[in-house]
Amino acid sequence: MKKILLAAALVATLSVNAQQELKGGAKGAPVINKDNSVTFAIKAPEAKKVTLHLDYTTDTEMQRGDNGVWTYTTKPLKPEMYRYNYVVDGVKVLDTENVYRIRDVATVMSMFIIDGEEEPCLYSVTNVPHGNVSQVWYDSPTLGTKRRMCVYTPAGYEDSHTRYPVLYLLHGSGGDETAWLEQGRTAQIADNLIAQGKAEPMIIVMPNGNVDENAAPGDAETGLVNPTFSHQKWMEGTFENSFNDIVNYVDNHYRTMKMKRRRAIAGLSMGGYHSLYISANNPGDYAYVGLFSAAINPKKGVESPIYNNLEEKLKTQFHQRVKLYWIGIGEDDFLYKDNAKFTRMLDKNRLRYTYEESSGGHEWRNWRKYLSQFMPLLFK
Amino acid sequence: MKKILLAAALVATLSVNAQQELKGGAKGAPVINKDNSVTFAIKAPEAKKVTLHLDYTTDTEMQRGDNGVWTYTTKPLKPEMYRYNYVVDGVKVLDTENVYRIRDVATVMSMFIIDGEEEPCLYSVTNVPHGNVSQVWYDSPTLGTKRRMCVYTPAGYEDSHTRYPVLYLLHGSGGDETAWLEQGRTAQIADNLIAQGKAEPMIIVMPNGNVDENAAPGDAETGLVNPTFSHQKWMEGTFENSFNDIVNYVDNHYRTMKMKRRRAIAGLSMGGYHSLYISANNPGDYAYVGLFSAAINPKKGVESPIYNNLEEKLKTQFHQRVKLYWIGIGEDDFLYKDNAKFTRMLDKNRLRYTYEESSGGHEWRNWRKYLSQFMPLLFK
Repeated sequence: MKKILLAAALVATLSVNAQQELKGGAKGAPVINKDNSVTFAIKAPEAKKVTLHLDYTTDTEMQRGDNGVWTYTTKPLKPEMYRYNYVVDGVKVLDTENVYRIRDVATVMSMFIIDGEEEPCLYSVTNVPHGNVSQVWYDSPTLGTKRRMCVYTPAGYEDSHTRYPVLYLLHGSGGDETAWLEQGRTAQIADNLIAQGKAEPMIIVMPNGNVDENAAPGDAETGLVNPTFSHQKWMEGTFENSFNDIVNYVDNHYRTMKMKRRRAIAGLSMGGYHSLYISANNPGDYAYVGLFSAAINPKKGVESPIYNNLEEKLKTQFHQRVKLYWIGIGEDDFLYKDNAKFTRMLDKNRLRYTYEESSGGHEWRNWRKYLSQFMPLLFK
Repeated sequence: MKKILLAAALVATLSVNAQQELKGGAKGAPVINKDNSVTFAIKAPEAKKVTLHLDYTTDTEMQRGDNGVWTYTTKPLKPEMYRYNYVVDGVKVLDTENVYRIRDVATVMSMFIIDGEEEPCLYSVTNVPHGNVSQVWYDSPTLGTKRRMCVYTPAGYEDSHTRYPVLYLLHGSGGDETAWLEQGRTAQIADNLIAQGKAEPMIIVMPNGNVDENAAPGDAETGLVNPTFSHQKWMEGTFENSFNDIVNYVDNHYRTMKMKRRRAIAGLSMGGYHSLYISANNPGDYAYVGLFSAAINPKKGVESPIYNNLEEKLKTQFHQRVKLYWIGIGEDDFLYKDNAKFTRMLDKNRLRYTYEESSGGHEWRNWRKYLSQFMPLLFK
């Protein structure tokens, strides 16, 4: 069993008595124990109360040791990427002993990964060939600006003349072109699935779906602004209308297979919405479509030809051979009902799709999982 | 005057009474005031003592307001990138209202940038054409492994057939292939200098100088390990001996000008040491050399032909036409004496170099500045 270890130097000095030794004064990075329980520790001698906030668990009060180090050990955790922070007397504190942090819109948390019993989690960096990741500025003639996207090219791309299929992978509201890489672990999932022979080598293009933003917060001339959910032009058709600028750039600058059966589009939440309408309006372009916890319905009051006559457009799209129409939704997702209505409409029209209903809600745990399920089905 | 604003939404609601309003209960992101003073605020109602730790200043106790928000306003700050954190009753706290953080080895701090009175700081993202940045895995036949480097290609690279000169830019001990981009703001410095016509468009290659590490911590199969200064193979010749693997990969995969007068090598601290010995051992390869706060002397007990007969090698190198040999050192740098000895040796041999003595010590403030001074001198 391979473990992803935080604070390797610390861990190396710990043995079976890990928890005891931690309480003896070690620093704050979490220790992943042999049974995949995790021991957290933070030194705060003057604090009256320290709480651990950990993904997918309820907040827990930590116990103070005689030395002022507060600790807590979880039950064994499932393989997954986890985020956490401490709250010390009401003040949010990231783990200063752990440099690995992750941003979700304007929230930053510490993170770690639990690997599986037999093999590493798909989200871990493993000893396999790695694809390259580029931050690429492209011209959008439709929008009249330069914009940035992230592009994953599979291992071997640079040293071959092969052409590759392309997955366009779109983020949700509040996200940007970095979201699928950082929270989605897309490069790791792709590296691992391709190395295991479970997914075809493919180019993955991650654009920025906020048309009034040239790049992720901090990477455009607007400077170090606070990331936000609110964008002026948002699910009103402009992104969908300008999307072919991205496809044209990619087809002109990468060794792609410029054909429908070698092109997929998928996204989470708002990105699922974008994937739904972009593929429905361009029935000749995408043989594979993935809607991950997708928003289905246009916002109230929004008028765009993009969103009109969806049912008719879908009939046309499906009759022109969609190889895979993949829908994933969590049973607790606030968009569950909208997706249920949507699949009933597809059923009524006898339009065939693949449906994955998972536990959980509108969250990255599901989107990483959906991507891991979706990628092996592409370009077969 | 353009300001880089943190928490733009907050700032938008503030006017001349910024500080008063902040004390009224606003959240913690620093507000950059019109005179470039900066107001910090953190809510910690139960704390007994809150200290601000800010780069290039002494630690300061913050003042508690009636509402439990602790604040402090600095004097006007010079244009620069600044890092900071709070210490709340002995616990280090990053600014949870500011998503911009920066890692230096195993230390993470919050950050912001102060722009100049007339124009943005060179380290800011401005409204100019942007180069692309790629994380690239390459084969190192000498080391027998795949390794990762970061590569900046200037704006326009993808849409031209032009060949470009190359700057190899090397990090210091404790750093990795991301250091010059993150702490060094290399992409911003290059974008700005090139757009202003002050530097030639160039490719900038940032390798990983730790040969027992395939990629930055967290990006190799060793997983989410704690970044450290200590590497087993460290300044003992292996990196220098394997460096041509990098040059060959770059020359074979990018549109480079494969000639000495279009190739530069520079680095900070250990990277300066690498630049010194790589260029001295390959006198036909680099017409431009930059030593930024360079380590000069091999570690005690290290034996490698790379480090032998330096004086003779330098004479050969300089006599084969070095266009620029640039040495920068801070007056408080712990390597000042070694650099002074080195320049005396160059003087004695009448080997001509350019010398910049700055204030300050062994710190990123100097290395960003040296890069900004060095780049405009290249490939003229």
